[in-house]
Amino acid sequence: MIKIKKINHIAVVVNDIESALKFWRDDLGLSLDHIEDVPSQASRVAFFSVGEGEVELVEPTEPDSGLAKYLEKRGEGMHHLCIEVVDIEGMLIKLRAKDVKLINETPLELPGRRMAFIHPKSTNGVLVELYEIIE
Amino acid sequence: MIKIKKINHIAVVVNDIESALKFWRDDLGLSLDHIEDVPSQASRVAFFSVGEGEVELVEPTEPDSGLAKYLEKRGEGMHHLCIEVVDIEGMLIKLRAKDVKLINETPLELPGRRMAFIHPKSTNGVLVELYEIIE
Repeated sequence: MIKIKKINHIAVVVNDIESALKFWRDDLGLSLDHIEDVPSQASRVAFFSVGEGEVELVEPTEPDSGLAKYLEKRGEGMHHLCIEVVDIEGMLIKLRAKDVKLINETPLELPGRRMAFIHPKSTNGVLVELYEIIE
Repeated sequence: MIKIKKINHIAVVVNDIESALKFWRDDLGLSLDHIEDVPSQASRVAFFSVGEGEVELVEPTEPDSGLAKYLEKRGEGMHHLCIEVVDIEGMLIKLRAKDVKLINETPLELPGRRMAFIHPKSTNGVLVELYEIIE
């Protein structure tokens, strides 16, 4: 059994982070940690701590990216659910053995974490991201 | 400042909970707490604990309900994000003062909790549920 730790974050795709701060920071009152450019994902991300997890606002920065096309097609809203696990490689091996459709067959290595996406076709329409945090 | 506690749950609308257990319980390995009929919401809900929060699978049980129509129109996927706060009435007063569009102007009283939904028009397309847990 691969250990599931927590909901790491919920990502919300938005047209414009500055405008979206009105609701999430000013009205609802979430605590904004920081805003970061993520060129590898063609996006800019605002991070809000909520309990042990985060809400992230994601704005596409390149018009031809997958995220920009998603936004154009579906409009603003929840984009993905990230679940943090202890052993992402073990999890991907298990999922492959169960014929779950993966977007990333092996984990992407990023500073401080490993990550992989599971295809919504296998998850009742939810884009699920898996994280393993590297201490 | 109204205290934000945590992400209480993420709800995923599905056609059929029994089929959806394949991915969420059997493949991913989330821990199923229980499945419950919620006649007041015209739905059946499967609850999975994930860290301090939950993933909930929600299946409409009446074909004319709002949830059933949402499912028919948008297909399976993430339905709402529930954020737990300490003082839901204070939060709703604050949101009204900021012209946030509310689905429930006052909290609905349910056993063990008060709840209200914020309209996606005010939240970048996310149906946000607010919870206050009553000890």
